Amino acid sequence: MKTMLSALLLAGAVSLPAGASADVLRDQALEIFKPLPSTVPAVKDNRITPDKIDLGKALFFDTRLSASGVFSCNSCHNLATGGDDNLETSIGHGWQKGPRNAPTVLNSVLNEAQFWDGRAEDLKAQAKGPIQAGVEMANKPALVEGTLKSMPAYVEAFGKAFPNEAAPVTFDNMAKAIEAFEATLLTPAPFDAWLNGDDEALSAEQKQGLALFMDKGCAACHSGVNVGGHGYYPFGVVEKPGANILPAGDKGRFAVTKTADDEYVYRASPLRNIALTAPYFHSGKVWDLQQAVGIMGTAQLGEELDEEEARLITAFLGSLTGTMPPVIYPVLPAETETTPRPSAAILP
Amino acid sequence: MKTMLSALLLAGAVSLPAGASADVLRDQALEIFKPLPSTVPAVKDNRITPDKIDLGKALFFDTRLSASGVFSCNSCHNLATGGDDNLETSIGHGWQKGPRNAPTVLNSVLNEAQFWDGRAEDLKAQAKGPIQAGVEMANKPALVEGTLKSMPAYVEAFGKAFPNEAAPVTFDNMAKAIEAFEATLLTPAPFDAWLNGDDEALSAEQKQGLALFMDKGCAACHSGVNVGGHGYYPFGVVEKPGANILPAGDKGRFAVTKTADDEYVYRASPLRNIALTAPYFHSGKVWDLQQAVGIMGTAQLGEELDEEEARLITAFLGSLTGTMPPVIYPVLPAETETTPRPSAAILP
Repeated sequence: MKTMLSALLLAGAVSLPAGASADVLRDQALEIFKPLPSTVPAVKDNRITPDKIDLGKALFFDTRLSASGVFSCNSCHNLATGGDDNLETSIGHGWQKGPRNAPTVLNSVLNEAQFWDGRAEDLKAQAKGPIQAGVEMANKPALVEGTLKSMPAYVEAFGKAFPNEAAPVTFDNMAKAIEAFEATLLTPAPFDAWLNGDDEALSAEQKQGLALFMDKGCAACHSGVNVGGHGYYPFGVVEKPGANILPAGDKGRFAVTKTADDEYVYRASPLRNIALTAPYFHSGKVWDLQQAVGIMGTAQLGEELDEEEARLITAFLGSLTGTMPPVIYPVLPAETETTPRPSAAILP
Repeated sequence: MKTMLSALLLAGAVSLPAGASADVLRDQALEIFKPLPSTVPAVKDNRITPDKIDLGKALFFDTRLSASGVFSCNSCHNLATGGDDNLETSIGHGWQKGPRNAPTVLNSVLNEAQFWDGRAEDLKAQAKGPIQAGVEMANKPALVEGTLKSMPAYVEAFGKAFPNEAAPVTFDNMAKAIEAFEATLLTPAPFDAWLNGDDEALSAEQKQGLALFMDKGCAACHSGVNVGGHGYYPFGVVEKPGANILPAGDKGRFAVTKTADDEYVYRASPLRNIALTAPYFHSGKVWDLQQAVGIMGTAQLGEELDEEEARLITAFLGSLTGTMPPVIYPVLPAETETTPRPSAAILP
């Protein structure tokens, strides 16, 4: 009913008293989306404290978590460029190319699970992946712990962040601290201001785009506080995109669940800051957001969006570009005699 | 005379009224060193303004200045780790290894010239080098300009930073903005506080180390506001170090001047923050600062420093570790349709 109403409003077929149409659209939107919380979300089994956040920030930017000393978490999840690296797929250890496009770290704490295939249940599980992946940071947990233990300032910071633990400097706690920092990376956007009641926060075109986003069915998957980031769907519900965009060799969530139904299934992408995080899709093959919207229409909805519709939806997506919390670049502890030395060697 | 006096003080052979020995040492030091200035130094042909600094900060952290989109200035001159990358020599485009250890960017505006061989007269000349070097960022000026011009927020920022220019987005202005930001990276240290009159800013051992640093002759080359960073000297004035530390193939300043006298000649390293910037020497072959001090003694002074002397000098060098100015990590402009795409390809 509301959907029809917003469609009629869009078409100019009905008119309502000033303010009423905004309220109708907002009411409909609030059934589907939620504004960002004003505080750092609680995460499972990891109480977030200022000390943990500080430690996590240092670790997030520390290239010494990689075997080569070249890459930090921030290399691929760059806070300067929308929380990702703007590459098709990331370049890692030994100039190897990663298998999938790096997702943004911004607001990622609000995702149901992490990675394109949801194989990590939360950010602390996720953080351990790239550090160990041979094509990314190529390190080993014991070596990471050795690196951290070799620097007294880190040992002290772990002690503060995990005050009741006898041996706080562990790979697990490193991941928890990184999760704590990442949980602070929320980016309130004009869409939040609008959901919270500021009628002027979205332009007329963005409101039209939002109405289309809901009416056409995009919001069936891209919903909730992160406008996506939960639920798993085949890429190509209606029509598989070409092999360039959906390479046959990467079967998505199938690798996690080993059930045939999960072939080419991916977590619905969270769309906050999507205008900052080209290129798009797990393959990183599409650079233009409006083009990506069109592909989604065809592949997921069986809907050939016309140029104007794609343009309006893209305008709405622009309202999801948020404001970064200020991050003071950390000053990291200096290596000591016992710090393992970086190795650029590529191991088999 | 002062040198003898400080030697006698060191040896405990004479005693002076309380405060007098500190004053003598300070007077001697002030003839050789200078505390950091309290304001950003003026640089040649490049008036430093807040707009230029802001733009330069963005550029300094922007990985899109590299052909691959992987490396920024900050990759090798990492502000989190003493302004360098803590690698023997940097890893660059295509996982190639650079020829020499990356020097710190901190306080580098105070150096007489840039690079180990002084081949760039200032930071704006220096900034253009690594961006174009095939083993580093592997980019081309025209492509860099195309990248910057493709992003309206950059065009606007260049307009503000270079307000009287018709076409401000140029490779040259990029370098000037980077120089302006780098000029702000001064790190006041305990040694400055002590030079400025705070007797307690150096420990007794650091004062002894300072006296040795002057008496043994280290300060003959490592002097001035940057405790080095000016003057060119053969590595191995007295005795050439082994080929591991001084590889025969790299003839230093000879490559710049082509005069035989400049074979294996390098700019005396600036020593501020030296405790943070292992490994040492242009070859990056020595990780331990005290060991590096010992090598300098033998190679440059013909002086076998005993362990205690090397330890005290190293303690003094620790007083050159300064405080970083807080740097808020920038939020960079988003790419547009016309932004050149990153290329990880290695060109011949």
